[in-house]
Amino acid sequence: MRKLKYHVASTLDGFIAHQDHTIDGFIGEGEHVTDYLQSLKNDYGVVLMGRRTYEFGLQFGVTNPYPWMKQYVISRTMKGIPDPNVELIAGDVVDFVKELKAETGKSIYLCGGASLAAALFVADLVDEIILKLNPVLFGSGIPLFSGTIKQTEMELTDSKIYGSGVVLLQYRVKR
Amino acid sequence: MRKLKYHVASTLDGFIAHQDHTIDGFIGEGEHVTDYLQSLKNDYGVVLMGRRTYEFGLQFGVTNPYPWMKQYVISRTMKGIPDPNVELIAGDVVDFVKELKAETGKSIYLCGGASLAAALFVADLVDEIILKLNPVLFGSGIPLFSGTIKQTEMELTDSKIYGSGVVLLQYRVKR
Repeated sequence: MRKLKYHVASTLDGFIAHQDHTIDGFIGEGEHVTDYLQSLKNDYGVVLMGRRTYEFGLQFGVTNPYPWMKQYVISRTMKGIPDPNVELIAGDVVDFVKELKAETGKSIYLCGGASLAAALFVADLVDEIILKLNPVLFGSGIPLFSGTIKQTEMELTDSKIYGSGVVLLQYRVKR
Repeated sequence: MRKLKYHVASTLDGFIAHQDHTIDGFIGEGEHVTDYLQSLKNDYGVVLMGRRTYEFGLQFGVTNPYPWMKQYVISRTMKGIPDPNVELIAGDVVDFVKELKAETGKSIYLCGGASLAAALFVADLVDEIILKLNPVLFGSGIPLFSGTIKQTEMELTDSKIYGSGVVLLQYRVKR
């Protein structure tokens, strides 16, 4: 069974991006970034992206962001993906992710966005949340989950405090 | 100069209470509570409460929640306070808090609510945010700030991880 981990940067006030999907204000360098890239390499074999998350990279010409993973973009509206290494999933995301999770292998990296995270959380498919809590308030923006999820207890399984003020918090969903 | 500290429990998804102002889901006992009560006794000389925050205690018969502090409820609509130890401030909260901050003495405890916090944050009167990050998602509720604040960098000045999974994070507003 693969685990599904929602691994995302957040502000203190619970936003993962500004309303226009930019992320100005998150700390983009330092030990927490090195650790994050290491975790991406070591821990994950598959990545799931919402359309807007994938398009955020596309505007910088990034068509193949995680070449060492199986890469899937979840969208009912996109017509195609400009890179053969990335696959478009236009069908039922819940069924698709259930099949992915039934495989053996490394974990599934859910890097966003918030709508996809909410859909998968509601379907009880998210196993862990890994928050890179940045020392910043956005005041408004895109929340951790776009869509109502039910109250859920979590178990803190690991944490690390960085000199930059970033706090890495790893939680398991209690079931 | 007194410092103003917004000291509050929050969920991972950035909520300080449910929409109906209840707080079911926050961990109500353990070492983090002992530390919190100690901090209330040692660090603060004044407390500011919004109307709904004060009324939340009132429904349980708590009229004088912090008897060792000067206690102020900020409200334009309340007619009076049922306890002589608690003073109603119906005038301009910004001017009032500026005067309080000009005093010498222990810090000012801003215990909520989110509307009062936003008004004081916008007026650049909040010096620190102390988050008791509880291992729970509410999915919806009252955010850390009710009202739009501007993007603000913070400095992590202290942290403590509790066995319960509560994470205490202390931040200074960067000016």
